Amino acid sequence: MKDGHPRRCFLGAGAVDAWPADDRGLAYGDGLFETMRAHAGTVPWWDAHWARLARGAERLRLRLPHRAQAREEAGRLLDGGGGVLKLLVSRGPGGRGYAPPDPAVPAWQLSLHDVPPPPPVEGLHLRWCRTRLAVQPLLAGLKHCNRLEQVMARAEWQGEGIDPSAVHEGLMQEVDGGVVCATSANLFVRRDDHWLTPRVDRCGVAGVCRAWAMQALGAAEARLDVADVETAESVFLCNAVRGILPVARLEARCWTRDTPAHRQVVALRSRLAAEHPAFEMEMS
Amino acid sequence: MKDGHPRRCFLGAGAVDAWPADDRGLAYGDGLFETMRAHAGTVPWWDAHWARLARGAERLRLRLPHRAQAREEAGRLLDGGGGVLKLLVSRGPGGRGYAPPDPAVPAWQLSLHDVPPPPPVEGLHLRWCRTRLAVQPLLAGLKHCNRLEQVMARAEWQGEGIDPSAVHEGLMQEVDGGVVCATSANLFVRRDDHWLTPRVDRCGVAGVCRAWAMQALGAAEARLDVADVETAESVFLCNAVRGILPVARLEARCWTRDTPAHRQVVALRSRLAAEHPAFEMEMS
Repeated sequence: MKDGHPRRCFLGAGAVDAWPADDRGLAYGDGLFETMRAHAGTVPWWDAHWARLARGAERLRLRLPHRAQAREEAGRLLDGGGGVLKLLVSRGPGGRGYAPPDPAVPAWQLSLHDVPPPPPVEGLHLRWCRTRLAVQPLLAGLKHCNRLEQVMARAEWQGEGIDPSAVHEGLMQEVDGGVVCATSANLFVRRDDHWLTPRVDRCGVAGVCRAWAMQALGAAEARLDVADVETAESVFLCNAVRGILPVARLEARCWTRDTPAHRQVVALRSRLAAEHPAFEMEMS
Repeated sequence: MKDGHPRRCFLGAGAVDAWPADDRGLAYGDGLFETMRAHAGTVPWWDAHWARLARGAERLRLRLPHRAQAREEAGRLLDGGGGVLKLLVSRGPGGRGYAPPDPAVPAWQLSLHDVPPPPPVEGLHLRWCRTRLAVQPLLAGLKHCNRLEQVMARAEWQGEGIDPSAVHEGLMQEVDGGVVCATSANLFVRRDDHWLTPRVDRCGVAGVCRAWAMQALGAAEARLDVADVETAESVFLCNAVRGILPVARLEARCWTRDTPAHRQVVALRSRLAAEHPAFEMEMS
């Protein structure tokens, strides 16, 4: 707990100094998390994040901490400031073996992180990831802690001899080829004057900002293949930490900013800034 | 670290009192583990376990602790005794976000657990799990820490109103229907006088005891469907903690003990007991 980021850990309702070493989150990724944008001591999308967490907990039959306590502790950690607030909830300590402890006492932590730099004005540069997402309807949509696929995908453009500024994000396909999302953001494409976003019923995460953008745009869910993305009129990514992220390139494919579709993305960013104060400051 | 099981935690080469709360094993299941049978202060299959760990580390590009130190600390924890020794290695502390820290300092722990009771003399009772395994060749075969599927499968026969003695293990299929393994053991079936075990190149774990049994029996890898298992002449499970586990029932299907195939399973148990002293005491 000495990594420089403000952090508080809990077991059930009680604060603890150390994370339990026999925690099932650690042993099996048996947990859920939310990554939230905070502003002036508040978390404007708290309700949406908690609703997704609750859906995940129901699916995994995992106990959550008391919502009121989690919110109070979040406010205490923020101390009137903003940033990126991460909430991680695991099934808690347990014995060896996959059988969940019964009753279980959830282990959870809140940590506060810096806001990542705003996206480049010209838009993100994307790549196609080689790492594919497995199809698992049982876990699809949830923000659970089994994230090795994302780790492997993100590592594709990291390391020796790779210029980190050349690629900002990577798009991921499921094993059968369908396009699902970026490693840490959802995907929207404009085709035939309609906004579409990949379904997340086989894999992928049902993002909080994705839900906001779907409603704002009247966007529909669809199955999309590589060609659907590459021939789209416009493309953007989004997540609850960075908001709306215009895309300039996907490998060799470029999108110019001088199109009606791109202007819709810019308008969507403005609308988000108007509705969610944390994103306002990035509209310079 | 106060769950009653002897446990030691390390960060790189140094012992630590508390598990790092910003550990990536906890955040993403970004780690590997081995569960080993120890006897009289030794781990007879140490080399095979370490070899699998090293294969996993290579695939995930994860740094391992020094092998000599891990073995020395294992011996210290065992203190001349036996039991089930678990080694968990994670990528270690890291920032928020999927990009692996570079350089990473592995967090690892050794813990010592009781040996589970020996299997019932008449053989295990199995069920078919509803939870299916996703197909992910990138992670197949590894004993990584993304184990929500196994947790969900194991929870199927746990909880209120379920008699835990009625079912001992559950068989799992991959999403496309092929039979892969039990929740925490590998599967062998005898068909047409040959021993077969499901391939683990799409999902499942390449078990250390599985490799031993394949060699001992001259068994082959195969794709197996439900009918292949249900019409088999004999069936057994195995893992490195419990050894060879004869099977008596799979839901309505019963296997009698009075068959040449079953006698081969009994002979295999005897051979394992002769080769690996930890399993000797269970041959009463």
